[in-house]
Amino acid sequence: MTELVLVRHGESTANRDNTYTGWSDVPLTDVGVMQAHHAGKRLRETGIQFGAVHTSVLKRAIVTANIMLDEIDQAWLPEYKTWRLNERHYGALRGQNKDATRQEYGKAQVQKWRRSFYTVPPLLTAAELDHDRRYMKYGPNIEPRGESLKMAYDRIMPYWIDMIAPRLLDGQNQLVVAHGSTLRAMIKYLEQISDTGIDGVEVANGVPICYHLDDHLNITGKEEF
Amino acid sequence: MTELVLVRHGESTANRDNTYTGWSDVPLTDVGVMQAHHAGKRLRETGIQFGAVHTSVLKRAIVTANIMLDEIDQAWLPEYKTWRLNERHYGALRGQNKDATRQEYGKAQVQKWRRSFYTVPPLLTAAELDHDRRYMKYGPNIEPRGESLKMAYDRIMPYWIDMIAPRLLDGQNQLVVAHGSTLRAMIKYLEQISDTGIDGVEVANGVPICYHLDDHLNITGKEEF
Repeated sequence: MTELVLVRHGESTANRDNTYTGWSDVPLTDVGVMQAHHAGKRLRETGIQFGAVHTSVLKRAIVTANIMLDEIDQAWLPEYKTWRLNERHYGALRGQNKDATRQEYGKAQVQKWRRSFYTVPPLLTAAELDHDRRYMKYGPNIEPRGESLKMAYDRIMPYWIDMIAPRLLDGQNQLVVAHGSTLRAMIKYLEQISDTGIDGVEVANGVPICYHLDDHLNITGKEEF
Repeated sequence: MTELVLVRHGESTANRDNTYTGWSDVPLTDVGVMQAHHAGKRLRETGIQFGAVHTSVLKRAIVTANIMLDEIDQAWLPEYKTWRLNERHYGALRGQNKDATRQEYGKAQVQKWRRSFYTVPPLLTAAELDHDRRYMKYGPNIEPRGESLKMAYDRIMPYWIDMIAPRLLDGQNQLVVAHGSTLRAMIKYLEQISDTGIDGVEVANGVPICYHLDDHLNITGKEEF
């Protein structure tokens, strides 16, 4: 049996301010730092030993991962940071307040943008792209102008297949510290949730979700800490 | 021109207590954490952009590296952790107070153990090895029973050749956050210091050393921050 632990980063400044974030690289709040320590302490109590940790290239996830690794005294673990585990890109909604968008576009539209599998947010224009060097090194076409959850799912899966699943199949427990939508996509895959069923799934900040997997990576148990 | 920055971790509890450490995984002191922040802030002022960071599998170096990456807002950089950049293994001296060993073995012997290139410390017995899983995954023979600086040099160089030099030659600035003896070995190589000349070289905690390198990795300048 192998363990896969999924953790959403601690509260970020955007969570606190109730704004859309996506690929914007916002820091944790003091509450978020505390949540990361608590998540680490809860994992420490289980005694779990990991083979590697996977996170995004966004600091709210990386800092959460590093705090947790300190707490479980496994700072030496290989830490893989990938744009494929980045939060879903919220396009032109990034930086906007969620309540303000509800007033402007209506509750139903906002609910679709936030929770439905296929709905794409309003896109950034090409001129609005960041051209951040962390993405430019993969060529000019990695940075999206906006993503549906489906689009995020499709770029996450190659990472799952190449980097996470083989290590689990090799018997190594894996820790994934990522984002609300990224983790919803992984949970959809793992629990075989339908395209409409995923609308109702939310992931709380800093609460480790532990899947027990058999040697075909079927789920044999699930716990939250 | 490419930049290579070497940094020794901030003060550890063993530095504070004046004991030999080697591969013992001791944490930073509060002073050490502050030194790491200062080192990061000084680098931030230069505006340097790195391609990757390399560190050991010991938490005093990893935590220093993570604090520095936060300070320069490059937490997303690939971070490679390797036993090859671990501190020299101090064998049976680990955990002993340096002044106490001076009284027991004499100043000259201690100076040799600490600074000479070829002197091997008293070895651990096979029964005293830790069998830590971070080393066991490479097989049973990685964990040394004690190392001269020469022995540490010899296990560091493959990492330099395979992982650091190619990235520098590719034009990417590299950050190495490691240990006193590890960095003395790298400085010996870079500055072509003789086996006896290296006796006089010391590396301070948390002071970035920046080498400017030409496209054959010859040193064209050196600064400390």
